[in-house]
Amino acid sequence: MLKVAIVGASGYTGVELIRLLSNHPEIEITAVTSEQSAGKRIAEVFTSLSGVFEKTLEHISIEGIAQKADLIFTALPHQKAMDVVPHFLKAGKRVIDLSADFRIKDAATYGAWYEEHKAPGLLKEAVYGLPELHRTEIKNARLVANPGCYPTSAILALAPLLKNGLIDVSSIVIDSKSGVSGAGRSATQDTHFTEVNEGFKAYKVGEHRHTPEIEQELSLLAGSQITVSFTPHLLPVNRGILSTIYASVKADVTEDSILRIFDEFYSEERFVRVYPKGSFPNINNVKGSNFCDIGIKLDKRTNRVVIISAIDNLTKGAAGQAVQNMNIMHGFPEDTALRGLPLFP
Amino acid sequence: MLKVAIVGASGYTGVELIRLLSNHPEIEITAVTSEQSAGKRIAEVFTSLSGVFEKTLEHISIEGIAQKADLIFTALPHQKAMDVVPHFLKAGKRVIDLSADFRIKDAATYGAWYEEHKAPGLLKEAVYGLPELHRTEIKNARLVANPGCYPTSAILALAPLLKNGLIDVSSIVIDSKSGVSGAGRSATQDTHFTEVNEGFKAYKVGEHRHTPEIEQELSLLAGSQITVSFTPHLLPVNRGILSTIYASVKADVTEDSILRIFDEFYSEERFVRVYPKGSFPNINNVKGSNFCDIGIKLDKRTNRVVIISAIDNLTKGAAGQAVQNMNIMHGFPEDTALRGLPLFP
Amino acid sequence: MLKVAIVGASGYTGVELIRLLSNHPEIEITAVTSEQSAGKRIAEVFTSLSGVFEKTLEHISIEGIAQKADLIFTALPHQKAMDVVPHFLKAGKRVIDLSADFRIKDAATYGAWYEEHKAPGLLKEAVYGLPELHRTEIKNARLVANPGCYPTSAILALAPLLKNGLIDVSSIVIDSKSGVSGAGRSATQDTHFTEVNEGFKAYKVGEHRHTPEIEQELSLLAGSQITVSFTPHLLPVNRGILSTIYASVKADVTEDSILRIFDEFYSEERFVRVYPKGSFPNINNVKGSNFCDIGIKLDKRTNRVVIISAIDNLTKGAAGQAVQNMNIMHGFPEDTALRGLPLFP
Amino acid sequence: MLKVAIVGASGYTGVELIRLLSNHPEIEITAVTSEQSAGKRIAEVFTSLSGVFEKTLEHISIEGIAQKADLIFTALPHQKAMDVVPHFLKAGKRVIDLSADFRIKDAATYGAWYEEHKAPGLLKEAVYGLPELHRTEIKNARLVANPGCYPTSAILALAPLLKNGLIDVSSIVIDSKSGVSGAGRSATQDTHFTEVNEGFKAYKVGEHRHTPEIEQELSLLAGSQITVSFTPHLLPVNRGILSTIYASVKADVTEDSILRIFDEFYSEERFVRVYPKGSFPNINNVKGSNFCDIGIKLDKRTNRVVIISAIDNLTKGAAGQAVQNMNIMHGFPEDTALRGLPLFP
Repeated sequence: MLKVAIVGASGYTGVELIRLLSNHPEIEITAVTSEQSAGKRIAEVFTSLSGVFEKTLEHISIEGIAQKADLIFTALPHQKAMDVVPHFLKAGKRVIDLSADFRIKDAATYGAWYEEHKAPGLLKEAVYGLPELHRTEIKNARLVANPGCYPTSAILALAPLLKNGLIDVSSIVIDSKSGVSGAGRSATQDTHFTEVNEGFKAYKVGEHRHTPEIEQELSLLAGSQITVSFTPHLLPVNRGILSTIYASVKADVTEDSILRIFDEFYSEERFVRVYPKGSFPNINNVKGSNFCDIGIKLDKRTNRVVIISAIDNLTKGAAGQAVQNMNIMHGFPEDTALRGLPLFP
Repeated sequence: MLKVAIVGASGYTGVELIRLLSNHPEIEITAVTSEQSAGKRIAEVFTSLSGVFEKTLEHISIEGIAQKADLIFTALPHQKAMDVVPHFLKAGKRVIDLSADFRIKDAATYGAWYEEHKAPGLLKEAVYGLPELHRTEIKNARLVANPGCYPTSAILALAPLLKNGLIDVSSIVIDSKSGVSGAGRSATQDTHFTEVNEGFKAYKVGEHRHTPEIEQELSLLAGSQITVSFTPHLLPVNRGILSTIYASVKADVTEDSILRIFDEFYSEERFVRVYPKGSFPNINNVKGSNFCDIGIKLDKRTNRVVIISAIDNLTKGAAGQAVQNMNIMHGFPEDTALRGLPLFP
Repeated sequence: MLKVAIVGASGYTGVELIRLLSNHPEIEITAVTSEQSAGKRIAEVFTSLSGVFEKTLEHISIEGIAQKADLIFTALPHQKAMDVVPHFLKAGKRVIDLSADFRIKDAATYGAWYEEHKAPGLLKEAVYGLPELHRTEIKNARLVANPGCYPTSAILALAPLLKNGLIDVSSIVIDSKSGVSGAGRSATQDTHFTEVNEGFKAYKVGEHRHTPEIEQELSLLAGSQITVSFTPHLLPVNRGILSTIYASVKADVTEDSILRIFDEFYSEERFVRVYPKGSFPNINNVKGSNFCDIGIKLDKRTNRVVIISAIDNLTKGAAGQAVQNMNIMHGFPEDTALRGLPLFP
Repeated sequence: MLKVAIVGASGYTGVELIRLLSNHPEIEITAVTSEQSAGKRIAEVFTSLSGVFEKTLEHISIEGIAQKADLIFTALPHQKAMDVVPHFLKAGKRVIDLSADFRIKDAATYGAWYEEHKAPGLLKEAVYGLPELHRTEIKNARLVANPGCYPTSAILALAPLLKNGLIDVSSIVIDSKSGVSGAGRSATQDTHFTEVNEGFKAYKVGEHRHTPEIEQELSLLAGSQITVSFTPHLLPVNRGILSTIYASVKADVTEDSILRIFDEFYSEERFVRVYPKGSFPNINNVKGSNFCDIGIKLDKRTNRVVIISAIDNLTKGAAGQAVQNMNIMHGFPEDTALRGLPLFP
C-alpha cells in the first residue's frame, strides 16, 4: 500500500485527485493539507466528499507529511511549490508537482514569464510528466513536473507532426478554449457566475504563461527552436479544454498520411483517441476521464492542417495525468483508477 | 461472471448503465440493443464510449438476448417494455425494468395515467426497486420495477416522516426541479438548447405521470391513502433533481427530533446522506454518483417541515439504482460499481 | 427634462437602470455614484456601456447630488440607503429607493429580520412601490420603496386570490427560483461560476428577508395576518425569477372562475400577462422586459391552486419597476422606456 | 409610415426583427409569414411577443405581401429565398434578404459551396449589405444581401488591415465561436440541450459555407484573391460570435499604428467599438445590441496580429444589420430602433 499525501488539497485539482485516488486499490491517502482551511474536515470544504472521504485538512509540515507519505502530490500555486518540494526530496520522498514551478528547464525563461526561480538546481532533474512523450524518464524520476492543462492539449496534438517533420514550424497557431475550473476555486470578479455565463472572451492574448512550456516541448520534438501564437479563451462550462491548432504542411502531405501517422504514433497509448477522418472531438466526450481526443483536417485550399484536441482540464490536464504518472513511477498498471468512462451527458 | 444485456441502450439511461457496469468486476455486458441504431457500433452513437466499449447495437430478439444474458435491463419507453418483459421472464431470465410499466400495482391506476396495461398479471409480482424500502423483496425478485427519478427523490425524502407519523398526510406539496437529461435524448423543440438555456419553467402541472407512483409508495408507508401536489420543473442543467417538499408537522415535533429520526432511518444506508442541521443539498454534490442527499428545516412560524433532496436523475434516479438492485439480486456488495465519487465541479 | 441621479450605480441594478433610462425621452441622468469605483468612467466598470454612456462615477455627496438631480434612485445595500435617503428628502428631492430599507411598515419587524432601523419616522410615509396595487399613492409619494424581486413575483401572483377571498390564507407555500444576478455583482465563493453552473440549491430556507415583505402585502390584501412558507433557490441563469405558489382553495372555486378573476384584476395592467388555461410561464419569455407573466392551474385532486409567475429580477423585479414608478410619479406614460420586448432567445 | 413584411418570421431571425422593428417609429409591420405555422398567432410561436405583437402568421403569397408592404425582409433558408425574391422585385418592392442567396457575386462559386443558383441574373445587382463598407450602394439598392453572421465578425475585423496593406494576405486564420441560435430554431440532435450544454466543438472544419463570402469581401478589400482558414465552433450560449483572427504583419508595423488605423477607419461608425490597447471583447458586452466590438494585439514574438471581434449573431449578425440597412435605404437615422444598450448581465 503506497502512502500518498496531497499538499494543497482544497482547490479543484485537490478534490479531483481525491476523486480519482479513492478508487485506487494500491494507495492510501494519509494526509491532505490546506493553509486556508486547516482544521476543517475536507468534506466541509467539498460537500461532494461527505460521508466518503472524511479526512481533516492540516497545515503543511514538511516533517509531518514526510512521515506519513512516500509520494507527495503538491497542488500549490507556483512559487509556493518550490518552497516545499526541495524539502520533500531531501527527506527521500518522491514528488509529483502540479504547479508550473518545475516544468521549464531554463531558469531564465521561467524568470521571464513567472518570477525568479528559488530552486533552479532541480530544474534539470525534474521530468516533464507527459507520459506519452517521457514515459521512461518518469519511471525513475524523483520529481515529476506535471504538465499544464493547455500544454497537454497542444503538445499531444502537435507531437506526431513535429516528430515526423510534416509542418512548417514557424506557422503554428494554437487557439485554445478552457472551462472555468482551470481558473481555480478562488472567487474573483472575472469568474463570478453572471460575468462568465452567456459570455466568451479571450484573455492574456499573446502573454499566457503556458506559452514557454508549450514551446519548450514542441522545440524538443522538432529539434529546433519553435515560437507559437497561443490564445487562451474562457468557455462558460465547468470542465474541458478544446484546442484548435493550425499549421502549414509541407508539400506532398495528405490527410490520409497524417491520420496514419497519428494512428501509429498513439497506437499503444491508452488515453489518446485519434478520431477517424471527418470526425472531431467535443469536450463533453472526455468529461471526468483521462482521455485526450484528437481530430484532424487537412484543408487543401490553404494547405494548412487543423488539429483539434479535447481534454478534461482537471483530469488529463491535471489530476488524472498526475495519477497516470504515479502509476508509471510505482509500477502499477498505467490506467489504474483511470478506467472511469467519461460522464456523458 | 454474470451475463447482462441492455435492451434499449441508445438513450441516456443506456449509456449511464454502460458507464457504471463497465467498472463492475462481476458482470459482463453481452448484448446492447436499439431499434433505431441497430447495426451501428454504440461508440458511434455515444462517442464518449469510443475505444473503450466497442459493442455493436442489435435489434431486440427475445431468443437472441435470452441466450446471451441472464439478467436483462430493459430501458425502453413505457408500453414498449411490457411487450418484451413477459417473454424474458418466461425464458427464465431476471429483469430490471427501467420504464414505468411495472411500477404501479393497480392496473386501473396505470390505465388512468398512462394507457391500458397489456401485462397486468405481472403487476403483483413486480417489486418496486427502491432498495432503502424494499431490499428484502428485491433480493428474490424475478422482475424489479426500477423507480422513476422524481419518485426516488420524493419518497426517500418523505419516508421517515410518514413511517413515524410525524406529518399531516393531506398537506404534502412536492416541488421538483429536474435537469434536461430526464427528458431523454430525442430532439424536440422543448429541449432545443436555445429554448432551455437561460430558461426555467414548470410543466405538466398537476398532471405528471410520476404522481401515482409517488402516491402509491407514500400511501404504503403511511398506511393510508395519500394524495399529493406535485409540480415538476425543467432546470437548464444536464443532470440532477432537487425536490423541495413541504408538509405540516404534528404538534410537539422539533427539528432535532426530525433530524434524529432521519439519521436513524438511514443509518445503514450507504447511498443516503442526511445533512446536519442548517445544511441543504445541491445537485452538483451528487453528480454522477448514486447518492441521495437530504436536508431538513422545520419552520416554526408556519409549523411546516421543508425537506430538500437531491439526486442525479440518471444515477440514483435510474441506472445507478438499477445497478444497486442488480447487486442486491445477485448477492454482490451493494455498492459494487457505485463507489465513484461525485464529479465536482 | 427631468434630472435623475443613480446613487450606487456600479451594481447590476445600476447598469439595468442605465440601460432602461438611456431610452427615456423625458429624463436625463446627471449623476452616477459608486463608493468603490468613484473616479472611474462607468464604462470601465460595465464595458457594455462603452461609447454610449460615458459618465464618470463620483462619491456620494448629498449636496452635490441634490444640486444635480430632482429624482434620485438609491440602489445601495440595506442599512446604507437609510443613511442618505432622509437627507435627499430634506433637500426637497423625491426618492425611489431600491433597497429593503423602507419597504417594511413596522420598525420592529424590520429590526427582527434586518437590523435596527435608523430612520423609522419615514416608514409610514414611504409608499410600497408596486404600481398594480398602490398606483395612486405612488403618484404623490416623496419616497417610494421599490419592492424586492421575490415579493414582486409572489404578491402579483396572489393578489387576485386574496382580494377575492378564494383561498385558505394559512395554506400558502411559495417556492421561488432566482437567477444569480439577484445576488449582486460582488464575487463570492457561492456565486463563483463553477460552484453555480450545473448546480441548483435552496438557500436561507425559512429565513429569507423577503418573507416579512411578502407577508405584509399579502396581509394587507387579505385584511388579516398572513404567514407563508417561502423558499428561495439559486438557478444557474443570469436573470429571472419563477415562483411556484400553492394554496388550498375554498369550496366551489373552479379553474375557469380563477382565470376570469385574474383576467379582470389585471385587465388594465400593461405589464401583467395572464396566460390562457393550460399555459405556464418561462423566465426566458420575460428576459429584459418589465413583464410579470402568470399561469394558473387548479388541481382538483388536492383542491390546491398552483400559480406560477415569472419576472426578470433586474427589470420588473428592480430597475424596470423603479422606472415604472418614476413614470407614475412624474406623469409620463407608464410604459415609457419600458416598451422593449423580451430578448428571446 | 413605411410598410414592411417579414417573410419567414417563425425563426430566431424573425423574432429578432420583430423585437427591433417594434421600437421603430417610422415603420409598420403589415405581414408576417411562416409556411410551418401559418394560421397561428405569432405570439403562440413566440410567447415572448404575447400581448405586444399580436399578428397572425400567413402563408407566403407574392401578391398578398406585395400589396401590404413596400419593403420586404426575407428570412428564408437559402435556395428558398431565391424563389420569391425576384417576384418581389418585379412587383416593384425593395428586398433585404437575410439568406445566403444573393451574397456571392459569382454564380459558380455559389454553386460550388451551395447548390445551383436559380436567379443568377440578380447577383450582380444585389448589394452586399455591410454598411461600414458599402453604405453608398446600399442607399439605392433594390436588393440588399444581408451578410452572414460569421462574415460580419470576420470582415469588420480585417477590413482596416487589408485596406491599408498591413498583413500578409496568405496568412489569415479565422477561428470563430458562435452561440447556438445561429443554428436556427429547428430541433436537431446536435442542438439538443444535453448535447450542447457543457460541451464545445468545432464543426464543418474547412468546409463552412460562409468561407467564400468571407473571401469575396476580403479579396475586394485587398484587391487580390484571398484564401483563408476558417473554423467555426459551437458555444454553449444563446447569442454571440467571437472571432479570433491571426495574420502575419508586414515589417515596421506596430501595435500603436494598427490601433490608430482601426480608430480612424471606424471613427464615424456608430456600431463598431474599437477597444483601447490591452482590452479585448466579450460576447456578453454586445448581447441584444448592434455593436461589433474589436480588440487588437500585436504579438512581437511571432510577428502576428491577433484581432478579436464580438457581435450578437442575431443582431449585428442578422436582424440588427438588416434594420440598419433598411434605415440607410429609407433615409432614417441609421441607428433608429438600434439604440438599445446591450443586455448585461
